Amino acid sequence: MSQPLDFWFDFSSPYGYIGAEKIGALAGRHGRDVTWHPILLGAVFKVTGGQPLPMIPLKKDYARKDIERSARYYGIPLNPPSKFPIAGQAPSRAFYWAAEQDTAAAKQLALALYRAFFVDDKDISSPEITAEVAATLGYAREDILAAIGSGALKERLRRETEEAIALGVFGSPYVIVDGEPFWGVDRLDQLERWLAQGPF
Amino acid sequence: MSQPLDFWFDFSSPYGYIGAEKIGALAGRHGRDVTWHPILLGAVFKVTGGQPLPMIPLKKDYARKDIERSARYYGIPLNPPSKFPIAGQAPSRAFYWAAEQDTAAAKQLALALYRAFFVDDKDISSPEITAEVAATLGYAREDILAAIGSGALKERLRRETEEAIALGVFGSPYVIVDGEPFWGVDRLDQLERWLAQGPF
Repeated sequence: MSQPLDFWFDFSSPYGYIGAEKIGALAGRHGRDVTWHPILLGAVFKVTGGQPLPMIPLKKDYARKDIERSARYYGIPLNPPSKFPIAGQAPSRAFYWAAEQDTAAAKQLALALYRAFFVDDKDISSPEITAEVAATLGYAREDILAAIGSGALKERLRRETEEAIALGVFGSPYVIVDGEPFWGVDRLDQLERWLAQGPF
Repeated sequence: MSQPLDFWFDFSSPYGYIGAEKIGALAGRHGRDVTWHPILLGAVFKVTGGQPLPMIPLKKDYARKDIERSARYYGIPLNPPSKFPIAGQAPSRAFYWAAEQDTAAAKQLALALYRAFFVDDKDISSPEITAEVAATLGYAREDILAAIGSGALKERLRRETEEAIALGVFGSPYVIVDGEPFWGVDRLDQLERWLAQGPF
């Protein structure tokens, strides 16, 4: 059986959000499952010298326009959050905790958190707000808050981010399939050709 | 009549090369002409803090792979040049000199220069090699060498690069149509939708 795709993303990344809305169906069309890995791009940027888009002259103005236009292009609802970028610790740790019990449910939690941030302008960097979003899916708020504060999940997120850097991940979304990397929503077309036809 | 598209690019940019091979036919399908503007991204990077791809940890390894894969994806021949990146002064000034006389011929010259660099591994940062490539299209070598050394064309290239920065151009290729910016070969799909349907 084919290996799952690895899908790396940061909860503060708008292109990661668009990718998250697309990746499951894309992989499914080619009989593949997807393993989701939220990470902290801030730690990656310490290695690459990268910066969050809103910090980069010229590019930040383009990015603001491109993010909204790309969402419309791909048919994904998006309202620019009033606070951006945000820290991804709370939603990422909540995700890994949920994934330890049920990976499919954890992906639904990740999508709910992304939508809360990028559609409903909820600041999911707040543990309380992440717990509130999780509660709408039936999670107990106190379990989510405990997970976010847990040393084991803090360590898990640190480890995943280090693994991402070791694999060469430098942005979000970033997909690796059978060792082949695809960075960005705009590489989903190439990823799909790869899945359909094999290496090119 | 519709305004031409403005196509900004750096002669050292592999994605600029792929875009150059694509932009004329794309615009033509929608009854648009294209105005070509070679610039020096090095001057732009002084404003944005950007760096050439081969300088960026993690991203450089991905870029090497992505450039070759993208060329195959778009059906454009590409052999990674042995010297990369290069300075674009010689081919850019030769282009602007040729464009003062015949813009269509100048675009053919730009494509010949891009192919010399990205297919035949010729170092077009050398005035002699740029003149040699131009000679294959019927230009007099001494005219090209004189253009490359000319104060007026040096000034023209400086002015075009400054205009690019003023317009927000921070990468290559970068297309502006009716005030709307599109950065990257991977935005040609969005550009085409824009040309076909209008703003979205």
